[in-house]
Amino acid sequence: MDLDSIIESVKNYEGITRKKPIKEVVSLLNDVDKVSGKTYISFGDDASAIRIGDGKLLLIAADGIWGRLMEADPYWAGYCSVLVNVNDIAAMGGTPIGMVNVLSVKDKETCRKVMEGIKDGVEKFGVPMVGGHVHPDTPYNALDVSITGLVSEDAIITSCDAKPGDKIIIGIDLDGRQHPSFPLNWDTTSHKKPELVRAQIKIMEEIASKKLLTAGKDISNPGTLGTLGMLLEASNVGATIELEKIPKKKGIKWEDWLRLYPGAGFVLTTKPENTRECISLLESVNITSNVAGEIINEKKLYITLDDEKKTLFDFEKDLIMGIQEETQK
Amino acid sequence: MDLDSIIESVKNYEGITRKKPIKEVVSLLNDVDKVSGKTYISFGDDASAIRIGDGKLLLIAADGIWGRLMEADPYWAGYCSVLVNVNDIAAMGGTPIGMVNVLSVKDKETCRKVMEGIKDGVEKFGVPMVGGHVHPDTPYNALDVSITGLVSEDAIITSCDAKPGDKIIIGIDLDGRQHPSFPLNWDTTSHKKPELVRAQIKIMEEIASKKLLTAGKDISNPGTLGTLGMLLEASNVGATIELEKIPKKKGIKWEDWLRLYPGAGFVLTTKPENTRECISLLESVNITSNVAGEIINEKKLYITLDDEKKTLFDFEKDLIMGIQEETQK
Repeated sequence: MDLDSIIESVKNYEGITRKKPIKEVVSLLNDVDKVSGKTYISFGDDASAIRIGDGKLLLIAADGIWGRLMEADPYWAGYCSVLVNVNDIAAMGGTPIGMVNVLSVKDKETCRKVMEGIKDGVEKFGVPMVGGHVHPDTPYNALDVSITGLVSEDAIITSCDAKPGDKIIIGIDLDGRQHPSFPLNWDTTSHKKPELVRAQIKIMEEIASKKLLTAGKDISNPGTLGTLGMLLEASNVGATIELEKIPKKKGIKWEDWLRLYPGAGFVLTTKPENTRECISLLESVNITSNVAGEIINEKKLYITLDDEKKTLFDFEKDLIMGIQEETQK
Repeated sequence: MDLDSIIESVKNYEGITRKKPIKEVVSLLNDVDKVSGKTYISFGDDASAIRIGDGKLLLIAADGIWGRLMEADPYWAGYCSVLVNVNDIAAMGGTPIGMVNVLSVKDKETCRKVMEGIKDGVEKFGVPMVGGHVHPDTPYNALDVSITGLVSEDAIITSCDAKPGDKIIIGIDLDGRQHPSFPLNWDTTSHKKPELVRAQIKIMEEIASKKLLTAGKDISNPGTLGTLGMLLEASNVGATIELEKIPKKKGIKWEDWLRLYPGAGFVLTTKPENTRECISLLESVNITSNVAGEIINEKKLYITLDDEKKTLFDFEKDLIMGIQEETQK
């Protein structure tokens, strides 16, 4: 196991490098929350949050399904469009309410497969797909899904509130398989009963309502360390991670494991006194969890393995999204 | 002026014919609202509605911006993505809360233009774009926007509750121009101050809260009569429309006028005793409004002009969306 090789493979992974244009897009929308004055979180988190009164926040997220996934397996793309959106709301500590989609298809067969995947996703996760828009005549196939959820302002989990001294918990459901048509998807839900899958989403609501976290994100396209990197960037802090404390399925190479998109996986930060309860709640729903590191003041992400310590990201130089997030408290 | 030519041009307009695949897509999702049991309106309306307690409904809508519009004018596509979504919430009698977008671009220049259009739309309509997703590397340019709003269950405006004997009010802001790069867009907002544009959205909330309507939709891609057709289909009724009662800008051919997508335009149904108040509210914000017809039991849309009476749609045979809507009351 070679730390340099692991670091290289993570740093150059397209799941991370393609996040860069976020900065450019967001900079064009600088003043957006002046118009209503109710925005609580805008760009840079798993979902955005808007005050709707009575201490409640409306959560909205949107995910475009990566074209590669649509090409590799339209059914799985449809299924994943539900999975990723529901996880975005879970990662904020919220309750998912409903989804809408925009489906662009060039042929009926793709349309049918995507919709079957969506249907199975809806039944697995228990969140309705209530509407949308169909482009029946596009020269390409694409799927965008948006989800809305609700959360209390005093319970929301953000990406931007990790503080030096916080412990980093990484939780990943190890009971899965690499999806045959898209091996970077760590499929942890297809073979599971809806009850357990829904409980994995629900546990984040419970952890949030108990205020056990300082920050958190669901592990998505950038993989475990890329997702952590985005959290660090949003919080304007750094971290040290002990590689071997990251929960991992035996028999999969680290280079692959760290780039996988798990069906149920979270990067969370907690005060040291809350780590035990948090881990115990996650493990009650089959999400294997460890304290894998600590938040530090220095704006770097260090990875350690045995006696080695290397820099994965230097946030003074390396930008993932290029934006920092701030809640409007 | 030839009624047959007008009917032919409306019937064969792509803005209407491309709604057909909705049926096929929806049929694949038949059972979606079984999963949460909270869905109030799913497919077939301008926005979907989900119960969130205390008599409140969450509204969610999604619109994919037509590829043609993206090609013709990316700035205008960005601007319109805000306009169409805000109108979807207005058409339900709701308050728009916030939007998210998924932007797929193949080049930076298009990205910049789309985002500038979004920014100007946000400033005009006063609804924040709070987040989203960027695909920086797609072989095509596409923009999907989703909006969330709130409305009381006892005030929501649906498409499916028009009843025989109701009057049909058509309201269109005549102070506009055909957009130079997309002449089927009747641009009524670019040149107006945000105050008036926002008041045109707000007036629908007031009309809804006063319970003046039985049904309503905003006029969108299918044009005035195509939109009315979708409302009739959703309500399982028919109508007679007097062509010359439809508010119209002088100097534009009927064949064009009826296919235009206006920046502020609504097709509404009311009990006869409420028409006057409804029209007076719409006209207070510069939306010229007339009683242009009546809902009938027979499932046809008839158009009359002088002594002529012709059938535009026979809903026993012609389907626009192919679905009927039912609120889960």
